[in-house]
Amino acid sequence: MKKTDRDGPRATVQPLALNVVAGGAGFIGSHLCRALLDRGESVLCLDNLQTSRPSNLRALEGHPRFRFLRHDIGQPMPAEVLRMAPRITRVWNLACAASPPLYQRDPEHTMLTNVVGTNNLLRLAEAAKARFLLTSTSEVYGDPEIHPQAEDYRGNVSCTGPRACYDEGKRAAEALTFDYGRAGRAQVRVARIFNTYGPNMDPDDGRVVSNLICQALRGNEMTVYGDGSQTRSFCYVSDMVAGLMALMDAEFDGMEPVNLGNPHEMTVNELLGHVVALTGTRARVVHRPLPVDDPRRRRPDISRAGALLGWAPRVSLAEGLDATCAWFAEELVAEPAAGVAG
Amino acid sequence: MKKTDRDGPRATVQPLALNVVAGGAGFIGSHLCRALLDRGESVLCLDNLQTSRPSNLRALEGHPRFRFLRHDIGQPMPAEVLRMAPRITRVWNLACAASPPLYQRDPEHTMLTNVVGTNNLLRLAEAAKARFLLTSTSEVYGDPEIHPQAEDYRGNVSCTGPRACYDEGKRAAEALTFDYGRAGRAQVRVARIFNTYGPNMDPDDGRVVSNLICQALRGNEMTVYGDGSQTRSFCYVSDMVAGLMALMDAEFDGMEPVNLGNPHEMTVNELLGHVVALTGTRARVVHRPLPVDDPRRRRPDISRAGALLGWAPRVSLAEGLDATCAWFAEELVAEPAAGVAG
Repeated sequence: MKKTDRDGPRATVQPLALNVVAGGAGFIGSHLCRALLDRGESVLCLDNLQTSRPSNLRALEGHPRFRFLRHDIGQPMPAEVLRMAPRITRVWNLACAASPPLYQRDPEHTMLTNVVGTNNLLRLAEAAKARFLLTSTSEVYGDPEIHPQAEDYRGNVSCTGPRACYDEGKRAAEALTFDYGRAGRAQVRVARIFNTYGPNMDPDDGRVVSNLICQALRGNEMTVYGDGSQTRSFCYVSDMVAGLMALMDAEFDGMEPVNLGNPHEMTVNELLGHVVALTGTRARVVHRPLPVDDPRRRRPDISRAGALLGWAPRVSLAEGLDATCAWFAEELVAEPAAGVAG
Repeated sequence: MKKTDRDGPRATVQPLALNVVAGGAGFIGSHLCRALLDRGESVLCLDNLQTSRPSNLRALEGHPRFRFLRHDIGQPMPAEVLRMAPRITRVWNLACAASPPLYQRDPEHTMLTNVVGTNNLLRLAEAAKARFLLTSTSEVYGDPEIHPQAEDYRGNVSCTGPRACYDEGKRAAEALTFDYGRAGRAQVRVARIFNTYGPNMDPDDGRVVSNLICQALRGNEMTVYGDGSQTRSFCYVSDMVAGLMALMDAEFDGMEPVNLGNPHEMTVNELLGHVVALTGTRARVVHRPLPVDDPRRRRPDISRAGALLGWAPRVSLAEGLDATCAWFAEELVAEPAAGVAG
């Protein structure tokens, strides 16, 4: 094989911290890669490009400390990644389709990504003596019966329904991660991510913020599932990335999950009002049936993140939606005019 | 490759139903294999012999319609099994260490057995157009907050604790199984098995019935975890096997799990009293701390099994314990005398 970078003339710029970011071409992953590069670290991004946007990747690929490898984490780790183990200091698992229509398209793959994929990355972290962070999800709480959700709530998840491939996959991934931690095989961190929004979202992945903004900008009918009284709490992506980095950096035993999200709760109808006001759309609102097992309420209790990391979200909904609308407006410019795309 | 049996002189005795029984050398699996053979079917037993008793297997191996293949279902299916697909009519997944001390020994393996192993068997069933049955567990209810537990109860499971590799592994296995069913990839059946006891249990796997009987028979101290007021409901193994076979045979869409167990609930102290009376032991009782996440109460609501399968347990605790004690007494004869084994 060829000599690695560190032996060549570029050795002097080889940074100390090499991060493996699985799912680094995705929505949150791409922001994380950017933030790690911005603080002087190196990033090896693994992504199967299943649900990632190529433009997220293009914005990173020119960077001298960024490298991309197309890889599905459910498959055995490529030898070239294993050879980098001595240099890897951090392994971040942000890989998995996260919106219900996408993760339900191939539920077997979703489950294996969460379980086998997480295990493959944990083994890499173990071999590299690197710290590992799993991005778990508020979906581990299912349709919660207590409110807001603190980390010790065990959840109300259907393990037989169409969302189970994701929800139970993430719960299994947490179980695996804490088992590695308990056995001293790796230092572990588990973040439970609540609804997040911002630039680099996929316009068509079916999440409520991107759905409503894109429908408004395209002048299409705006879809509300159910009567819109269900609540969500939306965290702007820069806040989320700051929380993930703080959690990875924090010195503690790591043996408890940490909620990350914005506790500002609103109904879907309120969000709709904001989007309508911001975009000035006159689009009609249509109601569709609530999906199976759709949670009625979601709000994180973030006291643990506050106490442990000194972290709290900073970006207001007004600021965040404004930036997100502006970004989507640019993204959609290249699209055919409303009505043509159908 | 060589011609298969059905082309040879033994073709006339080739039975119609070929069952793949994963975990067939285990406690319940060995009884299931015997029952299938007894009704004239063929059995291919896959087992890694991780927690199975070789003597369970020896009792089956002489049978002309029984075949054993040592195989870990978490590994890719052997080609010789795949070649049998056209003859396979039923795939039973009873493979996984089931007692807490054993499944916690290698939690990664436990999780992968449940997820990857179940998926491998589901793929086999899909290829074979065979019906698939997963033995799930009452552990999917965790430490239940409603009582008794019906199938629509979503459970109270910790996905971060030391039991999660099993509990969440089984929940993930259910999710996978129902996804195959929903997509029409296989006909599926999911049984949630509650505590079961009887001959062929491992004397040393740490389950309460075998623990107490063997301690009594050996004249050792008898261990009760906690104060013994926690409840369990014990099903005799012949009832369990009858339930599993009825579920596999039942004609319905299979898209709901079915509890199998005995609803006769008792405290661990009551069980202890029965065992003491039956064995006449004068052994001292010692109390040890309750394990983490140990469920306080467990009792199946078996109305679904009754309505769907016309099934209910028939063997009383007195009969079942009597048979089990007699079997253990014979098993332990070969052991060194009490006190010597330490």
